[in-house]
Order: sequence, then structure tokens, then C-alpha cells
Amino acid sequence: MAKKTNQSIAERDARTQKKIVELAQAISKMTLSGREPQLSIPTRTKSNTVWNRKKGILEMGDGTADRPLFDLKTAKQFMQTMLHASTIKDLIEAGKTSSLRGVFYKAKHTVAGTKENTFDTQDESDPILEDLEVALAALREELHVFAENRGSMVGNITIVDKGDEIDCRRMGSGGYALPSIVEPDVIQFKKCEAKFILHVEKGTVWNRFNEDRFWEKHNCILTHGAGQPPRGCRRLLQRLNQELGLPIICVLDNDPWGHYIYSVIKQGSISLAFESTRLAIPEAKFLGIRAKDFRQCGLDDAVKIDLTDNDIKRAREIAAYPWFEGHKGWQKEIQAMLTNGFKMEVESLITKDISYVSEVYVPERLKAKDWLD
Amino acid sequence: MAKKTNQSIAERDARTQKKIVELAQAISKMTLSGREPQLSIPTRTKSNTVWNRKKGILEMGDGTADRPLFDLKTAKQFMQTMLHASTIKDLIEAGKTSSLRGVFYKAKHTVAGTKENTFDTQDESDPILEDLEVALAALREELHVFAENRGSMVGNITIVDKGDEIDCRRMGSGGYALPSIVEPDVIQFKKCEAKFILHVEKGTVWNRFNEDRFWEKHNCILTHGAGQPPRGCRRLLQRLNQELGLPIICVLDNDPWGHYIYSVIKQGSISLAFESTRLAIPEAKFLGIRAKDFRQCGLDDAVKIDLTDNDIKRAREIAAYPWFEGHKGWQKEIQAMLTNGFKMEVESLITKDISYVSEVYVPERLKAKDWLD
Repeated sequence: MAKKTNQSIAERDARTQKKIVELAQAISKMTLSGREPQLSIPTRTKSNTVWNRKKGILEMGDGTADRPLFDLKTAKQFMQTMLHASTIKDLIEAGKTSSLRGVFYKAKHTVAGTKENTFDTQDESDPILEDLEVALAALREELHVFAENRGSMVGNITIVDKGDEIDCRRMGSGGYALPSIVEPDVIQFKKCEAKFILHVEKGTVWNRFNEDRFWEKHNCILTHGAGQPPRGCRRLLQRLNQELGLPIICVLDNDPWGHYIYSVIKQGSISLAFESTRLAIPEAKFLGIRAKDFRQCGLDDAVKIDLTDNDIKRAREIAAYPWFEGHKGWQKEIQAMLTNGFKMEVESLITKDISYVSEVYVPERLKAKDWLD
Repeated sequence: MAKKTNQSIAERDARTQKKIVELAQAISKMTLSGREPQLSIPTRTKSNTVWNRKKGILEMGDGTADRPLFDLKTAKQFMQTMLHASTIKDLIEAGKTSSLRGVFYKAKHTVAGTKENTFDTQDESDPILEDLEVALAALREELHVFAENRGSMVGNITIVDKGDEIDCRRMGSGGYALPSIVEPDVIQFKKCEAKFILHVEKGTVWNRFNEDRFWEKHNCILTHGAGQPPRGCRRLLQRLNQELGLPIICVLDNDPWGHYIYSVIKQGSISLAFESTRLAIPEAKFLGIRAKDFRQCGLDDAVKIDLTDNDIKRAREIAAYPWFEGHKGWQKEIQAMLTNGFKMEVESLITKDISYVSEVYVPERLKAKDWLD
């Protein structure tokens, strides 16, 4: 049995369950009244994504697509959507959660009397779950589905995770492994002295900062998301930002991938635009690595990594994102990288000194408030 | 400053430092006496790997290769080896550790007066570090170098990590993130009631067992290594096995990759044969997924994943490993998979029930001691 910490989980589950039952009832009503059963699914495409300038986040528009049962193009998807809705109902009833892969397997079977499988690969299954998220206006966590856990946290905060009190000041060299579901009914914040969050791209860079006790010296929380941060990590950062008022300062690579990670943390992504209100952190700041750092920090030529054609293409695409387009600082930054003709990783600062990044670079930039936002 | 927990780190560092200085002195002596400077590096190849049947582990033979400075083929590697030795000396003196990528960057620079870089890619750098490990007979941890952190742990044990006491019974849904360096001077074991360790392949499967509080009901420790477990995870499992006498029970996929992961946990790998004595766990057991499970558990056809030509090739290679070759149970197991013609993932058991794996499958097999070893 999953351990439940308070009443709010039961309430949330009842709400989600009600939505699934209503969906099923609507379908059964259409069927019994002789009408063709069909689903209406909000579309998760770039064309149905709206940039909300005022809020500073990407949002989903109100476009929808019909998914009728009696259409060869959509019949299979109709069946898949209903199967997943049924699995989720079972999960909620059992008070359990499942991985994306688990949900895929739960629904995967050979249709009786045929050689046809309900699902062949997980690639078919994950989008159907996202369809259900938007159709039910329920988040993946509310559907009891989790992704791979990824990322770690240490710092001046105590949290409660499923009733266990976790003091992130005393997590040794490993840290607290960020779970995929971090909603308030699972994770609560307790004592927090930290004044900001330093979020770094990679676990190895996180190790450098943790070993140098950066979070202790600078009274902060230190996180990483093992590359592109997964939903759990983004959601936790947003909650720390909104509920505790902690600024999020990012230290990412000086390349289009680093810029993209920042834009996702800050404004959300197209595929998860329906989730932006609970994932995006419009106040997030980009401290570095900056294109100017090669000269400013006096780095050796060997740290340069040539931009590929694809990098240049990606950089131009990112510069044209509506949320970067009107931002002089970012236009200058991306142009400076293109003019350099090379990219740089956070690790390149180690050529100055093992702890240059944690003891000189970041402290200096923090003091000067030298960042892009 | 890195936090040091006891005197033994200083002693270990002094030993490693002495080895590096002796290496440098030997080179300088050759040079000053007019002889050609050269290094002698133990070879890490299959042909220099010996299967120690008695110990049940792979070991490195005593073959070595010379690496002279005045040879176009080896001059660059000679220089790279000396550069990395110098970086490691700096790391040890500073009492700091670095990632593999960090060490690469530390040594990466353009040779003065040329357009030539000391290193171009990390692919050149990592093997040089392994050369140094074997040449100095010092482990990567002793060289102050870590890999990416990977894997999590929960269960009935309290550990001390860099002086922080971590109660793995109270780690919520996230767990304790396994660090890369888990030597006794960093991590000590305190109170442990657990009677065994259940090691699963993936984080998502680990979530299932953690959510069902498997470790509490069965008084054990629950770990995963996010796929092929990294050194830190393997070393921690070995220490728990050797120092606390805990059996290691593995739940991996029924495919050549799962079998390979098991063989690495159990007997070590060719590329790290020099490390087997501190990584391999000859007593490790393979509980499942077994080829017989499709029939025995009554699974649906849809969970079958066809074996590819490459899978079949890998299965035959693994069956011919000396440590599997003489094992009737494993010969039968691999043959059964080939006869099935398909592989199965741990997640396929979810088609029975969400918690079938944690509440029926593993408990039944544990009770019947139904495993391969």
C-alpha cells in the first residue's frame, strides 16, 4: 500500500476519478443514443501554443481535434485512450503510481481473436497519456504516473517527503534524489534558511559545488537535473520559487542546448505548454556560461568547441522564440556566441583552477548581479 | 575545502601521492641518465584478462605495454599520461575531487607555439586515466576522480556520508542518491537490520518497490543503478555484501543486457578487471526475470519482444563467457531465452497487476530460493 500523508491526496484522487468516470459516461451516452462515440482532445502543437507576454510563459491555445471511433485513422487511438483511462482509474483506486513504461505494459495486450496488439511500442503510449492529461485537465501526477527520477538536491532546507523529514543540510556527498512526483501532498517544505537556488546542468558540476560546500557558504540550495531537467525537478524549482520566494539562478553550458534548457525552465516548452502554469519560472536567471567569458576569464583556446551547422541553426531558432525575440540581452548573447564561432561547457572553467567555478566565477557574478533574465 | 572525516583519507592520499612522485622521479632519472623516458602500462584487454575460477572473478593478467616518449605512435600518450598524473597530484594536494570531464579539461590546452591540443576529445582522456589507475595500482577514487552519480538506495540501514548520518528508512519517495566515491573513509555503515539487498535494474522499477514499502515488509535494502550500475553503485553493493554479509539479489530484464549486467555485478568486467577484487560480488544471485516466467506467470503474448540478430549474437557470446560456460543453470537459462525467441522486461509483469512484481513474484521466488547463482 502506498503511504498517504494527508487528506488532500484522497480529495485530489476523487476529483480525477470523477473526471474519468464522466469521460466514460459521455462516451457510453453517445453510444447508447446511437451517435458515433468520439473524444475531443486539445492539440499540443506549436500552432496551438500561445506566448503569454504578460505572464511570461507559454500557454496552450484552445484548439482541439476530434478522435472518432468509426474512422480508420483514429479508431486505434480512440481505443488506446480509453485503455489508458481505464488503467489510470485502476491506479487511483489502488492508491498506487506507475511509470510511463508500466502504463504502456498495463494496456499492452493482443486483441482477442486477432494478431493485433493494443500498443506496439512505448512511443505510441506516451502521447496518449499526454492527450489524457489535457483532455481531463489533470496533471500526470494526478493521473498517478511518474517519469524516471532524475536530479539531486542539497542545501539549507528541510523537506518532508511522504512523511519522512529530510534535512538537505546533512545529505553527504550523494544528496537527496529528486523524485518525479513532488506535489504538495507528497512533499512539504519545512525549515528553510536558503536565500536562493543555484541550479546547475550536470551532476558532475553539482558535485564540484557540493564538495566545496557552496550552499553552506552562500546560504542556498543546490540542484541539478542531469541535463534537461525532468518535470519533477522543474516543478520542485517552481514550488520553491513561488512558495518560498527563492530566486532560481542557472549555471548552464554556453551552447544552444544550455540556452534551450534555460528557456524551458523559464517559460515552459511547446509539448508541455498546458503545464506551464505549474512548471515555468519566469523569474529564472541565467548566470552563465556567457559568450564573453572566454575573454573575460582568460580561457585557453583548447576549451573552444566549434559550433556545428546544427548548433548555428538551433541558435537562430532559439533567438527567434517570441520570448527571446524581444529581449535585447539575449539577442546580444546568442549573437556573441555565433560571432565567437564556438561553444563552451561549464567544465571549461576548470582550466583556470579546480574550484574556479564555485569559488571565483559564480560568487563574483552573484555579487555583481551579472546575469541575464 | 573538502570536508574530511578522518585520518585515513590523509594516509591514503599520502600513499597515492608517493606513487605519483615515484613515477615522475623514475622518468626524470631515465632522462638525466641519457636513457629514453618510457612508461610501462599494464594492458587492459581481453587477452590479458584471466578468469580466476577459485575466487569467481575476472582478474587482470601481468601483460604490460611500453609507452616510450621517442616514438611517434606513443609520444602523445606519454605526454597525456604525465599531464593527467600532474592533475591528480594537484587534486590530491588541494583535497578535492574532479569528474572525468573535469580532468580532461584541466589537461586540455593548446601546446605553446603550435596549433596542437594536448587532448581533443574526452574519448582520449578517459583511457589514459584508466592507464594511470593500473600503472599506479591506485583506484580511481584514490586518484580523486569521480564519475556521474547514478542510482538510489532506501531500506533498513543507517549510513554516514562525509560525517552526515543518513537514515535510509526515512528517505521518502526520492531515496538517497548514490555517490560515485563510496570508499570507507567517505561512507561508513552504522545501524543495519536488513537481511539482504534487492537490486533492480531501473529507477522506475525501484519506485514500484519503494512505493509498496517492500524493504520494510521484507527487511532489506533496495537499490538500483539506473541501468548498467556505475562503479560507485557496484562498490557499495560489494561493501554491503562483504562487510555486513548481506546477500545481493538481482531483478533484471530477461535479455542479453540483463544477463550482462548480472555478469558484471557478479564477476567483474574486462575493462575493469584490475578492479574486480573490489567490485565483483561472486555470491550475487539472479532472481529474474527468467525465460520460464512467460509460461509460469501466465503472461500475455503482447509482452514478448522479439530477439534481434544482435541479441542472439550477444546471448551466445555471454553463454561462452568462461564464468557462464561451466554453469548448467545459466546454459539452460540462456538456451531457454533463445528457444523462446523473445525477451521480456521486468515491467511486463505489470500486465498481471500493478504490484504483482513486488507483492507476488519476488516474495514467492525469495521464499522458494528460486534463483540462479
